[in-house]
Amino acid sequence: MRALDLETPAVLIDLERVEANLKRTQDYADAHGVRLRPHIKTHKLPRFAKRQLELGAIGITVQKLGEAEVMADAGISDIFLPYNIIGASKLKRLRALTQRITIRVTADSSQVVDGLSQAFADADKPLDVLIECDTGGSRCGVQTPEAALELAQHIDKAAGLSFAGLMTYPAAGGYAEAAQWLATAKTLIEDAGLPLRIISNGGTPDLWNAHANTVATEHRPGTYIYLDRMQVNFGMGTLEDCALTVLATVVSRPTETRAVIDAGSKALSSDAPGLGGYGYIIGYPEAEISTLSEEHGVIDLTKCDTKPAIGDVLRIIPNHACVVSNLFNEVNLVSGDQVVETVPVAARGKLT
Amino acid sequence: MRALDLETPAVLIDLERVEANLKRTQDYADAHGVRLRPHIKTHKLPRFAKRQLELGAIGITVQKLGEAEVMADAGISDIFLPYNIIGASKLKRLRALTQRITIRVTADSSQVVDGLSQAFADADKPLDVLIECDTGGSRCGVQTPEAALELAQHIDKAAGLSFAGLMTYPAAGGYAEAAQWLATAKTLIEDAGLPLRIISNGGTPDLWNAHANTVATEHRPGTYIYLDRMQVNFGMGTLEDCALTVLATVVSRPTETRAVIDAGSKALSSDAPGLGGYGYIIGYPEAEISTLSEEHGVIDLTKCDTKPAIGDVLRIIPNHACVVSNLFNEVNLVSGDQVVETVPVAARGKLT
Repeated sequence: MRALDLETPAVLIDLERVEANLKRTQDYADAHGVRLRPHIKTHKLPRFAKRQLELGAIGITVQKLGEAEVMADAGISDIFLPYNIIGASKLKRLRALTQRITIRVTADSSQVVDGLSQAFADADKPLDVLIECDTGGSRCGVQTPEAALELAQHIDKAAGLSFAGLMTYPAAGGYAEAAQWLATAKTLIEDAGLPLRIISNGGTPDLWNAHANTVATEHRPGTYIYLDRMQVNFGMGTLEDCALTVLATVVSRPTETRAVIDAGSKALSSDAPGLGGYGYIIGYPEAEISTLSEEHGVIDLTKCDTKPAIGDVLRIIPNHACVVSNLFNEVNLVSGDQVVETVPVAARGKLT
Repeated sequence: MRALDLETPAVLIDLERVEANLKRTQDYADAHGVRLRPHIKTHKLPRFAKRQLELGAIGITVQKLGEAEVMADAGISDIFLPYNIIGASKLKRLRALTQRITIRVTADSSQVVDGLSQAFADADKPLDVLIECDTGGSRCGVQTPEAALELAQHIDKAAGLSFAGLMTYPAAGGYAEAAQWLATAKTLIEDAGLPLRIISNGGTPDLWNAHANTVATEHRPGTYIYLDRMQVNFGMGTLEDCALTVLATVVSRPTETRAVIDAGSKALSSDAPGLGGYGYIIGYPEAEISTLSEEHGVIDLTKCDTKPAIGDVLRIIPNHACVVSNLFNEVNLVSGDQVVETVPVAARGKLT
């Protein structure tokens, strides 16, 4: 089937570009001795997680227990879940996962550690816990290397837990600060007699500088598999490297300078409007997807010499690929213009 | 089960508030002789569509064929789909629906009309087509009453189609302009000898002024069933009327002024950041959900006297309820603090 014959909106995943993106990154990692633990949030597909492992990844990263369960069901046996798991029900699911696979989590407070300890106190083997460190990303994480040491000692003493190391999700552009932060914490913690088995660094924006973090033992890139307009803006690749596109049909041309497509926020998401519009339309570089409602995308054609007509099918590189994967129940794997296979997004919509 | 015992993030739908919102609007409509055709995009649940009909709605509105199919499967027999349906595959689905239920669509160009005509030329009964009119909303729609007349004549001559009237989705606050526009078009078209059976007006923001559009024969409100922060901002109701909330857990308190919850853009969406943060946290009016990543919501507590602790469960009124319904596979119907039933969002994720 030709991709252009799909009902729209639809997601196309270019298999050649996926492979090229994965290989380019694995080659970089191999050349620099960086171990990859890709984040599957971008694709949410067991087949691509397996391909990442085949190419050399040491394991995968997920953000939700539900994602871990899908990936474990698919036969993946080494998963990092860098999140504070809280509450009896989720802790029970986490413990069930430890019976099937190797899974590690993070904590950034004694409250979270105590919850984990209570759930694993009588477990056969201790749960590996890494400390999340806020190295500049301003999300979760202990705020200082001294606080990391204190929490490491708390984990070390906690029943059922094993202190495994440190984890960070640095700010984009903040890789040098993150490296310095982690190195300081590592020294502090080692000097206190606690070994660190893992120091986990993350993010696609600074992926090509992953090797500059010399204390990190692994890197968790996510979006590198598909790339998107945001990553191109970060300089991670070019528009021609972007593997995920949204196919949309021009359903209206109400005025000389306005087109409306059948992809709105339900297909493209409202993410990253600061990039100038809600996506890049291939072949229409001057067109701007200026406003989205749920089922409509309004395109400003003011600067366009050639303008699309009603019925034309456009291919759009979204601002943020990961959220698009979460909006579609299925994606179409394509080779060139042909749909090779349509597959369900197995780990889509896993909120818990 | 107590709502607070649900794994988070989770969606709660307060059944009493739903009923109050539906009744308040139906009472208003009955008092003013306004006929309601609610848009189900907000709830995507057959049970609420049926309740809207029981209370007096004359039919429902959907935005996608997939939504119409779900609602038809649930036994709903009168559906308006105000969208330009383009392409052989979708036209085939539309025609299949006409075999089962009464369904009407819109068009705003001769191209769309010609496609519909080709698909319905040999149908047993003609397809009702309304003309979408851009009365100020700047999305789809013919631009002038004269263009509406021209397209009405085109539909009237098209095989397999019946000109049924006009439809608009006005700009928020633009109800008076929309009424004037439609009245002018109505006169033009009637003077040309073409009767209008339906003039369909829409939107929740100006719902309490629906009766001011005296030429409209029906009104299509959507968000009024749940309301949300955006609608409260429009003055449509109060925060206490909002029926949909997102339950989230505080998973981190990295600093004195920062909390992180397990609801990010995958739970709350990035919609309407202009409202000041990505949702209203009940009980913490000064807290601002300042940034979202997919699985994290970062809350700025700078202005808060009391601050939530790790493990606290927060209830959030989202900026935009409709998109939240689309992000969750299931929602929890609650009465007070008790979960009455957990139901799949049957018409969720219908992109086509």
